[in-house]
Amino acid sequence: MANRIRQLRSVFARNNIDCLLVPSDVNITYLTGFPASESWLLVCPRRAFYLTDFRYILEAKKGLKAVTVKRYTRSIIELLYQCAREQKCRNLGVDERHITHAQYIQLRQRCPKWVRLVKANGLVEHFREVKDAGEIEKVKKALKVHKQAQHYLRRIVRPKISEREVLLKLENFVKARGAGFSFKPIVASGPNSCYPHARVSGRKIRNNEPVLIDMGIDVEGYKSDLTRMFFLGKIPNLVTQVNAHVFCAQRIAIDRIRPGVPVAEVDGAVRNYLTKNGLGKYFGHALGHGVGLEIHEAPRLAGNNAADLRPGMIITVEPAVYIPGKFGIRIEDMVLVTKKGCTILSDNID
Amino acid sequence: MANRIRQLRSVFARNNIDCLLVPSDVNITYLTGFPASESWLLVCPRRAFYLTDFRYILEAKKGLKAVTVKRYTRSIIELLYQCAREQKCRNLGVDERHITHAQYIQLRQRCPKWVRLVKANGLVEHFREVKDAGEIEKVKKALKVHKQAQHYLRRIVRPKISEREVLLKLENFVKARGAGFSFKPIVASGPNSCYPHARVSGRKIRNNEPVLIDMGIDVEGYKSDLTRMFFLGKIPNLVTQVNAHVFCAQRIAIDRIRPGVPVAEVDGAVRNYLTKNGLGKYFGHALGHGVGLEIHEAPRLAGNNAADLRPGMIITVEPAVYIPGKFGIRIEDMVLVTKKGCTILSDNID
Repeated sequence: MANRIRQLRSVFARNNIDCLLVPSDVNITYLTGFPASESWLLVCPRRAFYLTDFRYILEAKKGLKAVTVKRYTRSIIELLYQCAREQKCRNLGVDERHITHAQYIQLRQRCPKWVRLVKANGLVEHFREVKDAGEIEKVKKALKVHKQAQHYLRRIVRPKISEREVLLKLENFVKARGAGFSFKPIVASGPNSCYPHARVSGRKIRNNEPVLIDMGIDVEGYKSDLTRMFFLGKIPNLVTQVNAHVFCAQRIAIDRIRPGVPVAEVDGAVRNYLTKNGLGKYFGHALGHGVGLEIHEAPRLAGNNAADLRPGMIITVEPAVYIPGKFGIRIEDMVLVTKKGCTILSDNID
Repeated sequence: MANRIRQLRSVFARNNIDCLLVPSDVNITYLTGFPASESWLLVCPRRAFYLTDFRYILEAKKGLKAVTVKRYTRSIIELLYQCAREQKCRNLGVDERHITHAQYIQLRQRCPKWVRLVKANGLVEHFREVKDAGEIEKVKKALKVHKQAQHYLRRIVRPKISEREVLLKLENFVKARGAGFSFKPIVASGPNSCYPHARVSGRKIRNNEPVLIDMGIDVEGYKSDLTRMFFLGKIPNLVTQVNAHVFCAQRIAIDRIRPGVPVAEVDGAVRNYLTKNGLGKYFGHALGHGVGLEIHEAPRLAGNNAADLRPGMIITVEPAVYIPGKFGIRIEDMVLVTKKGCTILSDNID
């Protein structure tokens, strides 16, 4: 973990900062390995400070090794500037997306003359986008449990069981394996599947309809995220056709995934394909997203993201078609960008 | 719910605004009854607009009655200003604690000449602090399940069971009653209890030690939050004494709770009592907080809060003493401020 802080420091100069305020719990967890909670990290050139309060001070002192733990009583901002002064820092980087505007105003109001606040967005996320071997292993562990849960689902998803019953059984299954969910699973049957983020209901699954299940497993903080369709009984032609198109759109996307390719290009390829087949207007969300410590993290696979794919990224690819009032089809897999192309991490999970 | 939006509008003039941006999901849920997700609400004098994207548009249109649902594709901010223009709004209130600094910069950059951004913090929370009859009923429902869970805990917390096993059993118990947790319960045995927010571990509970269990139940979005101590076997004198002091401190606090009393006074009474008894330095967090749609909401019972108690507030009162490396005692109850005094909602739960 000390490596990660060192790595972070290596980009300070080019971002015109000599220290960085990290006010995001998950970024702190990434940098230190410590499960941060409602605390701030200040990374200075030679030292790093974990700023916390009474509630967490004992655990932090026990759990944080290469970082100095400081406790504030009245104001975390006061303590922040005190540490910055000790370390003779002048240009304090701040990620504007991780503090509220109210906090920023406080930071500015109490800012000493010798400190300049500098916008420094996404520095930690840039590193987090690319997973190291240990992180990839953890995601694979989550996928291993996911595979078991998926097999279990194939057994229990049957006509007459309700969406809520499926969820309850699934919860017990996952918990019994010592794992948890990375988000509340979506179990959307029949017309409910046309809502991209459907809420689980008491509706009973019927024969001759599609069921969409979107689930993620969390193992040691790292996550899986897959959507699978279940087709029970005799499926109408239209559903089968749409399913084939969504599948094909996904393969077209995955086919393009390799280092250096703009994420917008991958997203665009799917949209083009669906539009050519009269389905473009039914696909209104981004094509996918990074997965790791967070279920949704950078890079977002969308037309307005200027990022390029890099080896070590783990992303979801989840094209979909939602026909209002009728049904929806989403197929979501997880893909690891490799040096020359990519690997579908979830290829063996059906 | 339409009432709540009307009530909110009634304070616009005195806050120098003619419309309010509500970017907080839970505040939107409070105002509309709709379980909002990643969306904004714009409350104008005559109409209110729910701004959402492709993922949630169908559910929003189905679920929101008195509010106009609008979908954005590129920019929620563009749509926001478009609605404001239609409604001829000029002074747009913004809660600075509910948007990131990055979002605020975007709001300002795209702000049309005829709109002025006005700081408007805590307007919805001010109403949320005071619960109406329906909300109080829901909290009582959560407490009803809590009582059952607490009885169950009294049965299963025994020497040799691990903290994690207690948690698993508790989870199953609560889930079987159709309820959920409002936060991950704290089960802290022996020395673990000295961490105010201890993480559940594999540690086995032993005889002759205190166990601290802090739990909250969620029923229909409303929450309970109580901490109870379990004493197994023969308890050392010091633990018994500290427990008596914490209990006494809590009763001193509750004794002061009635409308018009500054929350800081209640907090101060506890700190004075503990300090007089040599325990003040072991109590480092706030005395309590409001509970409702959120597990922690206004008012915070702390020395630096200038608010007064009002009838209808539901607050926790949770004095504590944590002796580092040894043990901690926290006793937390929920209190409803009534017209003349208060009622301990959790008095029948031991």
